[in-house]
Amino acid sequence: MKYLVVYDISDDKIRNKVSTRLKKFGMRVQYSAFEIEIKKTDYIKLYKEIASIIDKTDSVFFFPLSSYSESLILKLGQVKREEDVI
Amino acid sequence: MKYLVVYDISDDKIRNKVSTRLKKFGMRVQYSAFEIEIKKTDYIKLYKEIASIIDKTDSVFFFPLSSYSESLILKLGQVKREEDVI
Repeated sequence: MKYLVVYDISDDKIRNKVSTRLKKFGMRVQYSAFEIEIKKTDYIKLYKEIASIIDKTDSVFFFPLSSYSESLILKLGQVKREEDVI
Repeated sequence: MKYLVVYDISDDKIRNKVSTRLKKFGMRVQYSAFEIEIKKTDYIKLYKEIASIIDKTDSVFFFPLSSYSESLILKLGQVKREEDVI
């Protein structure tokens, strides 16, 4: 299943840990957003891992992307690539 | 229809302009993300307005949220409220 993962994480180290894990399953589309494709078992594991890493003031959303809803996504401007992110 | 709008906008003034428009149709859920509910005609107008405001290096994504996909959204941590954003 595909997901859009969007996050607000204040601490640089924690944010890097989360993006490193997300990179294993997909690609960065914005500074704080990844599109990932992942099996259910891995998804549950990833979710728990991220839950254990982030601070309680941080926030991470996992939006499921069905093939239909994915076809309706409108993208304005430039998709951020990994190399755009320092 | 409901949408998640996620954006990467570098210039503060432009980012504020975009969030001000999005606030008319919904609520902030992260520093750079809004959930909005909007009629098709308004959606097209909003899309064009934002397209005309942002810089070409910025990016704004509009993810449609069906009632089904909305029920599957997983939210970890704290949803950012308007007052959390300086």
